[in-house]
Amino acid sequence: MNQPVGQKVDGLIRYRINLAYDGSAYYGWARQSGHKTVQQSLLDALTLVFGESSNDFSMRVAGRTDAGVHAFSQVAHIDVTAAQIKRLGRTKSIAFRLNSILDRDIRIHSFEIAPPGFHARFSATFRRYRFRIADGPVAKDPLQARYTLWLAHELDLDLMREGAKEFIGLHDFNSFCKARTGATTIRNMKSIKISRNPNLGGVIEIELIADAFCHNMVRAIVGGLIAVAQGSAEKSEITHALKVAQKRAPFKVATPEGLTLVEIGYPADDKLEEQAAITRKKRQLNAN
Amino acid sequence: MNQPVGQKVDGLIRYRINLAYDGSAYYGWARQSGHKTVQQSLLDALTLVFGESSNDFSMRVAGRTDAGVHAFSQVAHIDVTAAQIKRLGRTKSIAFRLNSILDRDIRIHSFEIAPPGFHARFSATFRRYRFRIADGPVAKDPLQARYTLWLAHELDLDLMREGAKEFIGLHDFNSFCKARTGATTIRNMKSIKISRNPNLGGVIEIELIADAFCHNMVRAIVGGLIAVAQGSAEKSEITHALKVAQKRAPFKVATPEGLTLVEIGYPADDKLEEQAAITRKKRQLNAN
Repeated sequence: MNQPVGQKVDGLIRYRINLAYDGSAYYGWARQSGHKTVQQSLLDALTLVFGESSNDFSMRVAGRTDAGVHAFSQVAHIDVTAAQIKRLGRTKSIAFRLNSILDRDIRIHSFEIAPPGFHARFSATFRRYRFRIADGPVAKDPLQARYTLWLAHELDLDLMREGAKEFIGLHDFNSFCKARTGATTIRNMKSIKISRNPNLGGVIEIELIADAFCHNMVRAIVGGLIAVAQGSAEKSEITHALKVAQKRAPFKVATPEGLTLVEIGYPADDKLEEQAAITRKKRQLNAN
Repeated sequence: MNQPVGQKVDGLIRYRINLAYDGSAYYGWARQSGHKTVQQSLLDALTLVFGESSNDFSMRVAGRTDAGVHAFSQVAHIDVTAAQIKRLGRTKSIAFRLNSILDRDIRIHSFEIAPPGFHARFSATFRRYRFRIADGPVAKDPLQARYTLWLAHELDLDLMREGAKEFIGLHDFNSFCKARTGATTIRNMKSIKISRNPNLGGVIEIELIADAFCHNMVRAIVGGLIAVAQGSAEKSEITHALKVAQKRAPFKVATPEGLTLVEIGYPADDKLEEQAAITRKKRQLNAN
């Protein structure tokens, strides 16, 4: 009864990690040999703190961001042994230790024992992404350059909003995803809000909420919205691409710098396990 | 009567340049041999557009920012000949051409003929700077890392505001400036506002307005305010340093990343010449 409170998986203790990063210098979240990635940097720091892990701490993440994409609020989990935790002592928090090792472009906001049933990826109920565009009339702010797509011409936000409506609801987003074998591309787009931010000189903000996003999906959708908003495509082309759901949609995928993962939604603690089971079933995937 | 409207100085036409920059990669505004500076990058781009200039276009600037300091809104002027302008043709604006040459971390917001009497430095009536600090309780946002000073401990803003009052008004800021021979260090500090920005998770913003700032002055003042706000100095030490006005104040100068020049104030067009004359007299300086 003196065990740490929280979830134990196969005798391991699960920790929830809240973090943020500037993705400019990284080849995305996921480990890839020969590339600097956020996950690899985090694993390296964890190894310095906890020692070697044969299974890379069984790390899982809520949003596997692409190269150059940022995260204001990302969530991951790892599993560690009670012995690893005990060896650490209590002089400094684990978040503090990790932040001392990591570069300033990755920050650990919290590192805490996860509630029972918590799975960073499968317990999540929604993901919220934001894409920023400084179009024609907006003064290009060099202090926002790393986080904003710059376009020379003005975009028509009424047209963009019309295009956005086509994406709302349950669709097979296959035409707007990079294929991953065995993975479903059916997603539920809950909302797409489009506005100009007066605090950023009128920069366009596209905020997308879905249960989950497949690989490349936000940037492919934003590419379609830009095409419609600049009058180079009809919104019917979006409708058609969604309906066909076979080959890639005929829009240019937007470059990554404007994209930031801003929120991962989870249910109340007593629903975490149930939600994870629902998601696993829906995705018809193996454990990863 | 078909001459360009605007100010002619010795047969030259004066242009006002509004620009912004991320200072992270630059050794400050002012040209320095062997260093990459904002002014040098701008002069290089101007030379590509207009051709060689024997006097470096007589460029003058409103705020000579230090290494690593940013500008959301900087103002400079240059003088060019009518022949140089004529050679350009009219296909693309000069701002567009300069932006095509410059890196994304410098942006020209406008490039227009200056009104008569305009001098970027001497016509200015005030400068407004903003210094951002994410102290102890504020989550460190990697997307703001380049523009924010991070401190591990919490600052007491009531103490900071008490310290700030000491700086208000006309003082000899010699103890808070890096000396420049022949230059007065008497400045009029109009206001220092201190608040937490709820849109940035509670980041502290110190906004300073003065007629002008001497070299290093904002960062030296912020260093004093931080010392008072963390309880390592008494506000009377600020009062004393201002009164003595001889040697450097005993506070650590704040690092530059948190500092941004946000506004240069100018009077109405018909007061530009008069204001420039007043400033020149006050500074008791040569023409530069």
